[in-house]
Amino acid sequence: MDAGSGSGDKAGFFTQGRRWLKALPVKFKANMVAMVRNIRKLGQDDPRRVIHSLKVGLALTLVSTFYYCQPLYSNFGVTAMWAIMTVVVVFEFSVGATLGKGLNRGMATLMAGGLGIGAHHLANLSGHIGEPILLGFFVFLQATISTFLRFFPKIKSRYDYGMLIFILTFSLISVSGYRDDEILEFAQKRLSTISIGGSACVIISTVVCPVWAGEDLHNLIALNIEKLGNSLEGFGDEYFKRTGGEESKDDKKFLEGYKSVLNSKNSEESLANFAAWEPGHGRFPFRHPWKLYLKVGTLARECAYRIEALNGCVNADIQASSEVGSIIQEACTNLSIESGKALKELALAIKKMVQPSSADSHIENAKSAAKNLKSLLKSGIWKDIDLLKVIPGVTVASILIDVVTCTEKIAESIHELASEAQFKSVEPTLSTEKLHSGQIQSVKSAQMVNCSHVVINVGESTLPSPPSESSSAPNASKQRMEV
Amino acid sequence: MDAGSGSGDKAGFFTQGRRWLKALPVKFKANMVAMVRNIRKLGQDDPRRVIHSLKVGLALTLVSTFYYCQPLYSNFGVTAMWAIMTVVVVFEFSVGATLGKGLNRGMATLMAGGLGIGAHHLANLSGHIGEPILLGFFVFLQATISTFLRFFPKIKSRYDYGMLIFILTFSLISVSGYRDDEILEFAQKRLSTISIGGSACVIISTVVCPVWAGEDLHNLIALNIEKLGNSLEGFGDEYFKRTGGEESKDDKKFLEGYKSVLNSKNSEESLANFAAWEPGHGRFPFRHPWKLYLKVGTLARECAYRIEALNGCVNADIQASSEVGSIIQEACTNLSIESGKALKELALAIKKMVQPSSADSHIENAKSAAKNLKSLLKSGIWKDIDLLKVIPGVTVASILIDVVTCTEKIAESIHELASEAQFKSVEPTLSTEKLHSGQIQSVKSAQMVNCSHVVINVGESTLPSPPSESSSAPNASKQRMEV
Repeated sequence: MDAGSGSGDKAGFFTQGRRWLKALPVKFKANMVAMVRNIRKLGQDDPRRVIHSLKVGLALTLVSTFYYCQPLYSNFGVTAMWAIMTVVVVFEFSVGATLGKGLNRGMATLMAGGLGIGAHHLANLSGHIGEPILLGFFVFLQATISTFLRFFPKIKSRYDYGMLIFILTFSLISVSGYRDDEILEFAQKRLSTISIGGSACVIISTVVCPVWAGEDLHNLIALNIEKLGNSLEGFGDEYFKRTGGEESKDDKKFLEGYKSVLNSKNSEESLANFAAWEPGHGRFPFRHPWKLYLKVGTLARECAYRIEALNGCVNADIQASSEVGSIIQEACTNLSIESGKALKELALAIKKMVQPSSADSHIENAKSAAKNLKSLLKSGIWKDIDLLKVIPGVTVASILIDVVTCTEKIAESIHELASEAQFKSVEPTLSTEKLHSGQIQSVKSAQMVNCSHVVINVGESTLPSPPSESSSAPNASKQRMEV
Repeated sequence: MDAGSGSGDKAGFFTQGRRWLKALPVKFKANMVAMVRNIRKLGQDDPRRVIHSLKVGLALTLVSTFYYCQPLYSNFGVTAMWAIMTVVVVFEFSVGATLGKGLNRGMATLMAGGLGIGAHHLANLSGHIGEPILLGFFVFLQATISTFLRFFPKIKSRYDYGMLIFILTFSLISVSGYRDDEILEFAQKRLSTISIGGSACVIISTVVCPVWAGEDLHNLIALNIEKLGNSLEGFGDEYFKRTGGEESKDDKKFLEGYKSVLNSKNSEESLANFAAWEPGHGRFPFRHPWKLYLKVGTLARECAYRIEALNGCVNADIQASSEVGSIIQEACTNLSIESGKALKELALAIKKMVQPSSADSHIENAKSAAKNLKSLLKSGIWKDIDLLKVIPGVTVASILIDVVTCTEKIAESIHELASEAQFKSVEPTLSTEKLHSGQIQSVKSAQMVNCSHVVINVGESTLPSPPSESSSAPNASKQRMEV
């Protein structure tokens, strides 16, 4: 029996093994297919990634000709490897990042080389025993001070890589001097190979399909504001449909839009940082006011927090009753659509680099919609309704009124950007036409809704005006400081 | 006249020059004083920065003895400079970051070295003319593929530096082989000097006053939750004092607390990333559930968005009228104090690594306060008040009720963390005692307020229950995906 079961185990083991072997190609194929799909998606999401990879390959291959070409090799020798190192380390995705790193590396090598030679000569004076001690002391002192300086936020954001190379070059050159008397030649070779590698990077990244960080920042800010606009435009329908009992299907699309704005601070800041290194390009002159984009971005994030709150209302389990919904739906939908349109017009103005005057009318509409909403809330129709049923609707209305303030602030900051960056001014009709193409339907319906409200609005001028600049001044100044 | 004015100009120039020269030492002194103050502040804010700088200096000085020491130098020669390079590049602030970079560099060098030698041998077979062409092709292919792989988010977050070193080493070794036949020795020397430099970094950063990224993450999360707790505790008083007409002075302190939580995502993620490289240390074993901290952090940020909305209410120009304020003040203050206390207890539990059971009672209190608030809103006392005056108060109440849900979710995630990380369980009385020391006053008053509400609460069990898990499930699952 034992032997029998043993052979049965063995047979089972072999069958399992054979099955596993049979499944192997299938699994392998599935994995490969998934990987290829991932790679293709990564490339399709941003084809510039593929081009960037090819550019890095090109730069490296070019620089490595130093080794293959006899006249070049006899001049630089083994130090040619620093050119290769420089290319690998300095070549970044955008021109600004590459230029920033290249300039940091070049300047730091120059300065640290000079200081290193000085330290070597000073140490040389102190005799055979004193020299290594003094050199060690210099290296220790310099590394400690430079490392500490790297903690300063201003240095960290722009010159961190330069400080690193400063420590590296100083240590290398001062220490090499102990063994190699031709330290001046060593320093000069290091500087020239690094310059060659750096120049190769900068030239290839600028000439072959350049990726400009400034343009990316410009587009990112425009896209973020457009996303906010889309979320707001969709909100009214989304919320009141939900209240009315119908579950909407494109929930996720609406949600995802503004969510990415909540956490875009870091990418905005690093792009602005890179953009500051870039020369003038395309529509952007040198010294384009990149910092103002950060201000617009901060205000857009403030608006995204409000939309996050609105989203909380959409997902809450206590919803406005249909009774309440029917009363405020029109005003709320109108307000959110008009704010959304204003934001989308602003985004379009940034994209096309024209004065954002076409958004002003939408902002006025949104403001008057907010007034109407307030007058609705003030009217006597609520007396008979249970307050608890009114709350969700009132909360939504109150946040929406706040959103109008945010939209106004964003518009102000974009007006500031437009005047500082000298955006072109356009005929208002022209830009309106541009926007209307493709979304005539929704605009028309919104205008109809709006007209009905303008009628109600007559005689309501004594109402408290919607929260305006004066109230939000402390917030605005805080944001300026943050920028 | 001309001559006179000319001499007058000259005299003016000299006077100005003298004044400028006189002012120079004063200006210089002022600048120096400001700089010294800045440096001192930077060191005092986190004394570990000074220690880190000294550690880098020490590691560099140690590694540079390769040059001074004849037996060591005769073994490694000029390649000793790679040890110096490694120290400069790999030594990071925390142990995790240093280990991660060191391991990345070591492994990448090993793999790329092997591949580079293979490429060199393959190219060698193709004759004198074919060799540089084939080598150039290999370098191009490898650089292009590796650079593209760096765009994959998973690779970018953990192995970006390794990929960089892979490209670098492969290029260096395969290309050097064209000139230098002792390529094996070259590769072996590079690997051993890099290992020595890397080991020096890892040993010094682990042994001398180590900075653990894991511990930093742990403390950051606890601190963030404590900040939210403080903001909430202060909110009730802040808001209703403001409504009552008194401007509070410590406005800024209250504002700044939670603001830093809004944008802490990146630092949390990078700390968690570094922490994953760290071995067990102190209270944290290897494979401590660092990812759960990210989940807690995400929920804390959700809560911070709500507090941002509350803050918007504090700064709004339409405030709850004192009439409305007096009705909801007690319940709102009670709710925010109890949620704040719950969060602070949770923060304390994380800090001390004990089961967060002591927070449960506060959460229950907050939930019953939310119920009371709802019952207040439902009661008939509002019939005679203008709805527009009620809105600000109702908005605040509604957001506060939402905050309770957030607090509950945070508590749940911390319970999960506590059970996965096996936090100690403590006697509830013990931990309560710990918390109460120093803040007995406020707890007592809160309990009094609460008692009065518990009385009201009897018979209110048919009210809709406060928004609980089921409603927030979609949100929670989204966050899990984000984590």
